[in-house]
Amino acid sequence: MQISCKYSRVLSTLASKAQTAKELGEDRIRSIIIKHLGRDPREILGYGDDAVAFRLDGGKVLVAHTDVLVGSTDILPGMNPFYVGWKAVVMNVSDIVSKGAKPLSLLFSWGIPRDLQGRNISKIAEGMSAAARKYGAYVTGGDTGEAKDLVLAGMALGIAKEGSLMRRSGARPGDILAVTGEFGLTSMGYKILLDGLDAPKMLRKAALDAIYTPKARLREGLVAAKTRLVSASMDCSDGLALSIHCLSEMSKVGFSISKIPIAAEASRFASMHRLDPVELALYEGGEEYELIFCVRRNYWRQVHSAIRAVGGRLYAIGEAIEERKVYHQSYDGSIKRIEPRGWRHFDKWAAPIPS
Amino acid sequence: MQISCKYSRVLSTLASKAQTAKELGEDRIRSIIIKHLGRDPREILGYGDDAVAFRLDGGKVLVAHTDVLVGSTDILPGMNPFYVGWKAVVMNVSDIVSKGAKPLSLLFSWGIPRDLQGRNISKIAEGMSAAARKYGAYVTGGDTGEAKDLVLAGMALGIAKEGSLMRRSGARPGDILAVTGEFGLTSMGYKILLDGLDAPKMLRKAALDAIYTPKARLREGLVAAKTRLVSASMDCSDGLALSIHCLSEMSKVGFSISKIPIAAEASRFASMHRLDPVELALYEGGEEYELIFCVRRNYWRQVHSAIRAVGGRLYAIGEAIEERKVYHQSYDGSIKRIEPRGWRHFDKWAAPIPS
Repeated sequence: MQISCKYSRVLSTLASKAQTAKELGEDRIRSIIIKHLGRDPREILGYGDDAVAFRLDGGKVLVAHTDVLVGSTDILPGMNPFYVGWKAVVMNVSDIVSKGAKPLSLLFSWGIPRDLQGRNISKIAEGMSAAARKYGAYVTGGDTGEAKDLVLAGMALGIAKEGSLMRRSGARPGDILAVTGEFGLTSMGYKILLDGLDAPKMLRKAALDAIYTPKARLREGLVAAKTRLVSASMDCSDGLALSIHCLSEMSKVGFSISKIPIAAEASRFASMHRLDPVELALYEGGEEYELIFCVRRNYWRQVHSAIRAVGGRLYAIGEAIEERKVYHQSYDGSIKRIEPRGWRHFDKWAAPIPS
Repeated sequence: MQISCKYSRVLSTLASKAQTAKELGEDRIRSIIIKHLGRDPREILGYGDDAVAFRLDGGKVLVAHTDVLVGSTDILPGMNPFYVGWKAVVMNVSDIVSKGAKPLSLLFSWGIPRDLQGRNISKIAEGMSAAARKYGAYVTGGDTGEAKDLVLAGMALGIAKEGSLMRRSGARPGDILAVTGEFGLTSMGYKILLDGLDAPKMLRKAALDAIYTPKARLREGLVAAKTRLVSASMDCSDGLALSIHCLSEMSKVGFSISKIPIAAEASRFASMHRLDPVELALYEGGEEYELIFCVRRNYWRQVHSAIRAVGGRLYAIGEAIEERKVYHQSYDGSIKRIEPRGWRHFDKWAAPIPS
């Protein structure tokens, strides 16, 4: 079941019937929905994973994911329509890639406000197409309807080999936790765009590039799946802290995090504004489409080399532990809990997520 | 390419850049989008069909479709949230069934207004689940986001056998054109709900049932595909006149229509209000999820019997002709052109569709 892994946690706190979406918040809304859906015995990833998967003939698996981009909440200042279309594709591709699936096709249902300009519709489609082609696919299908908000509901379809499918749930204590890139650029971008913080031109550019034209880690996902040595995998689009907690919940392990790779620009920005770069990386970002993998310690070299061989990077950031808590160990040796927080839809108006 | 078949017709009338969505209308919006997407050589149905399809191993085909339901334009008065969820599933299932695909799974991206009640979210999910189960599938995946409008963007996945896939494009002159049910009930419902026309209780019930809990023609679609004797197929959800024109454009034939099956309740309602029942059936309805098939004359009996054998009906309504026009021949022998019109998104504000 492709939906946040937080259902189990919130099922017991189901809202009273008189509550509105903004009072419920995204996690409780999802738990309300999922309560009715039942469990398809043919679906092989199970609740809470990035995507759904079904066995096909020939040892293959169909992987599908849907992710929605909404104009009023997901479009940042200065994001031109080309980037909107681009991002709508990347957010869908990233999730199937995190399962080890090669993109087959994308479909989009559009909700279009009546005053949206034709040239902007054109630019969105252009961005979608460019991103889809980058990941070896096309946007082959779609539907359009009038709506009060711009809505781009994407569906990514991909094909994986059954034995290579990477789940969120296979990590074991002792496994190395690793990510495919550095963090902090999107947080920095949000601080610049939403909070009005200053940044020199080069830093600003790095941050805005990360936000406007994110990249899905296609090569890394596919080669990692091919090694069959990754015990758990997901993408980090909900933010690093929430993603680690998700892996923790799905794999029934905890994590001790010791070293988070921070982009040099984000470190400089943090020191300019006296911000904690680790806080930026863990909690203030999101929409960083890095993959996060767990790898058995014995196989680390092999997975690391395979990813390097396709031009990617793999940074060990910590290890899985028995105790189901998530800690961060600083350079100075102090240990702090990492909280399950980050940005979620409706949270601006919602009560805090129960944890 | 799963999108209206009207692209080719309107590509030449691309809007000037200053136009808004409401000025452009749905067909021109779609042509603007499609211009950028390119043609995926792996997709086997091609532009303008109900769904997209990709070859899998073992002679099978993956069929996928996306259709979006929008609160502000697609929800009719009196339509409770259960029906909204139900309809969102049926509109997606119907398109893949019209290609001869058996539903595998459904995914939904939700755009949720912040003041939507939790109990209504719950009812929508319940309706979705009930409809999915009716057609042998589950809703296995989804995403939620905050939006100004309620948006339910569904994705239906299905599996067909390659040799059985039914396209919009295979009709030849002389083929019999047939539909799987009677028309007129949804038109009658719109007249009651939107124009305030009166109807006795039983007629009203029949009309509202047709609108609130539509059915996809699963058995008919699957058994028709199995015969491999259907030369063209689509669903009639855009209205009967537009659907016939679509088959005409995709198959490069015309049609002569002689006998449209009208539901008894719709005939009574039409005579009560001095309306033309054929006009109701052709132009005023839509969201009738009957399938429309073309069948070679020699195979008519076989296809007809196969559909009867699963409890369905098949009504011959006319035949395909060389001349690429669509005519209706009345009981009195008079012949009239059937126009390519019906209800489309944005049309309330848009210029007429070029034809």
